[in-house]
Amino acid sequence: MDLMKKSLEMHENFGGKMEIRAKVPVQDKYDLSLAYSPGVAAPCLEIEKNPSKVYDYTMKGNLVAVITDGTAVLGLGDIGPEAALPVMEGKALLLKRFANVDAVPVCLNTKDVDEIVQVVKAIAPTYGGINLEDISAPRCFEIEDRLRAECNIPVFHDDQHGTAIVVGAALINALKIVKKQPENMKVVINGAGAAGIAILRILIQMGYVNVLMCDTKGIIYEGRQEGMNPIKEQVASLTNPYQLRGTLEEALVDADVFIGVSAADLLKEHHIKSMAAEPIVFALANPNPEVTPENAKKWGVKIIGTGRSDYANQINNMLAFPGIFRGALDVRATDINEDMKLAAVEAIASLVTDEELNEDFIVPSSMDERVAGVVAKAVGSAAIGSGVSDLFQQTSVVQDIIAI
Amino acid sequence: MDLMKKSLEMHENFGGKMEIRAKVPVQDKYDLSLAYSPGVAAPCLEIEKNPSKVYDYTMKGNLVAVITDGTAVLGLGDIGPEAALPVMEGKALLLKRFANVDAVPVCLNTKDVDEIVQVVKAIAPTYGGINLEDISAPRCFEIEDRLRAECNIPVFHDDQHGTAIVVGAALINALKIVKKQPENMKVVINGAGAAGIAILRILIQMGYVNVLMCDTKGIIYEGRQEGMNPIKEQVASLTNPYQLRGTLEEALVDADVFIGVSAADLLKEHHIKSMAAEPIVFALANPNPEVTPENAKKWGVKIIGTGRSDYANQINNMLAFPGIFRGALDVRATDINEDMKLAAVEAIASLVTDEELNEDFIVPSSMDERVAGVVAKAVGSAAIGSGVSDLFQQTSVVQDIIAI
Repeated sequence: MDLMKKSLEMHENFGGKMEIRAKVPVQDKYDLSLAYSPGVAAPCLEIEKNPSKVYDYTMKGNLVAVITDGTAVLGLGDIGPEAALPVMEGKALLLKRFANVDAVPVCLNTKDVDEIVQVVKAIAPTYGGINLEDISAPRCFEIEDRLRAECNIPVFHDDQHGTAIVVGAALINALKIVKKQPENMKVVINGAGAAGIAILRILIQMGYVNVLMCDTKGIIYEGRQEGMNPIKEQVASLTNPYQLRGTLEEALVDADVFIGVSAADLLKEHHIKSMAAEPIVFALANPNPEVTPENAKKWGVKIIGTGRSDYANQINNMLAFPGIFRGALDVRATDINEDMKLAAVEAIASLVTDEELNEDFIVPSSMDERVAGVVAKAVGSAAIGSGVSDLFQQTSVVQDIIAI
Repeated sequence: MDLMKKSLEMHENFGGKMEIRAKVPVQDKYDLSLAYSPGVAAPCLEIEKNPSKVYDYTMKGNLVAVITDGTAVLGLGDIGPEAALPVMEGKALLLKRFANVDAVPVCLNTKDVDEIVQVVKAIAPTYGGINLEDISAPRCFEIEDRLRAECNIPVFHDDQHGTAIVVGAALINALKIVKKQPENMKVVINGAGAAGIAILRILIQMGYVNVLMCDTKGIIYEGRQEGMNPIKEQVASLTNPYQLRGTLEEALVDADVFIGVSAADLLKEHHIKSMAAEPIVFALANPNPEVTPENAKKWGVKIIGTGRSDYANQINNMLAFPGIFRGALDVRATDINEDMKLAAVEAIASLVTDEELNEDFIVPSSMDERVAGVVAKAVGSAAIGSGVSDLFQQTSVVQDIIAI
């Protein structure tokens, strides 16, 4: 594939994609005496006296670590920390390009959950935020939960929440077209990995009540014996209000929405024809979706979204994570909480106007330069509103600023 | 002090000193498809197949982590990881400015030796080299030794070796002026911390045989009971061939060289007057030296060096570390070994020509743009010659290249 060869060439010619640059000049000994010895003692002492000053005098406040153990990289699986580095640099590239966030890869030479938590906590003082990336499920859930609890900077596992936030935004706009309400719809999520679980969580917060989740063993339900784990037990208790059992095929009967974070080509004509009227399908398996947009349309799907840039309605977490980190950093958020994620959902959806909205345009383009800024503002306000901004405390003055 | 105020202002105005920048353009979806999904899978897969390709396709080969636990920052002591960050950024600034090395700070939230070793090993896959910085002695010796043994990338504790290398270079040139030989000289090192121990080690390799080391308890000797530790036991066995005991004052009688890495103003007139003819004094305590150059000259010192930029003969590790990392990275060295350090010593000394050499000019200026390149070349050659270059194996072809 020519694209692959071109990509290799590009990576080799540039020697990777990111570099570290100075923001301050060093032309003479005076410059040196300010930036390094002896002048540098001044910011050191100020920070020692008042630790929050580290945000004023250093790069920390704009620096995000993109951290992986290389266990679930793209669709390639457990390829290890070195082989994961091009993806982490890519993530850093997007954070810089779309949100002016400084981000550095940190690829870890361990797969042990306890050790990963320990290592990330140990290096955390350097960064303003942590983006976890390409860590396999279900390990990623525990790692993120523990780090969120134990770090005083925001920790965000993009593979979970990034995709979920964009799916949430896409659904808001899709529902405007089909004129349905979340509480009246049947939604099937296929795939109980990192992204699937996060999509489920955000849909529940958005008011969806009839959600089914399937894995390779079929519908997840309370009391199922096969292929369960603590996360799936939780899924069973949160979903499937009618206690359905059976296959994906059975789950899909009368479903309004199918969300696939699973594998290529598993949705066939009879699956789609068994769905409710004007079905919505987000076929997010990468690079080959659960059903091609061509077939989906032919078989009666009203709105089809995929992860691919060469089709309409690209469900791309690029719409979420740059603005989320920008917003979190701007207000020195100590967490990226549910309020902030929902604010990002609404912000992304809002960028498609009623005039623009149609079956083939339910989310903004991934190259839309406005997105990160709008998301950042919404996320920052939500951080303040939910009391996790270290810079702006929840006061009436700040409320006034937000109102303006 | 105005410089301190200026430094604070500069740090605040720029929001720290370093940033992360993209080397590749992202103007459209095609650029994205090369730098990120799906094209990025190509370098990932190549690296998975052949791990050494990580040096071709990523930033690793030019990326150094500047790692501290904040326990011995400048002369400020244990100020913690956040307060250490301005210094680590400063170090990254110098590596970029003088040697085009990309360097990122990593400030650790732990002081436990085992945990530091574990954390650094865990994050090592991302980097081409590790610069340890401002870690207190004697912990720093064990940390460096273990990391050198257990990492396959070079690990270098600059506070030890950087200063030692420049002292070694300065001594080579100072000896040309006073026309003495290493093997006939008495040298007193005052201060048994990280820098003092490393200076001792390099002097022994340079052929100095009569070296005394003093700490706050006086001369270190075999069998001393007070204030010893395993490192000082080793010092005792390597130094003090005449088994002297006593104070620094007693040590200094007939000494040819005094090297202070200790504290301000402790060398008095009677100390210096007790030394041998044409004494050489490197008074490296910072910011205030063991004796001021004015007093040293008045009391008969032939050659005085300090750590300060406002006096002649600045013994500044800036002359060493940028070129050392440049050289190590250029040949993909797996270590920074003694051969490489000695090569740096010779290279730095060589930059002062016989015509330029005088009592007030024994080392190049810290702003001399030639230094890093000359040091890098020497260090790279020494890495190849000593068999620690992953890029150039020791073959006759390579020998020929070096010879040219």
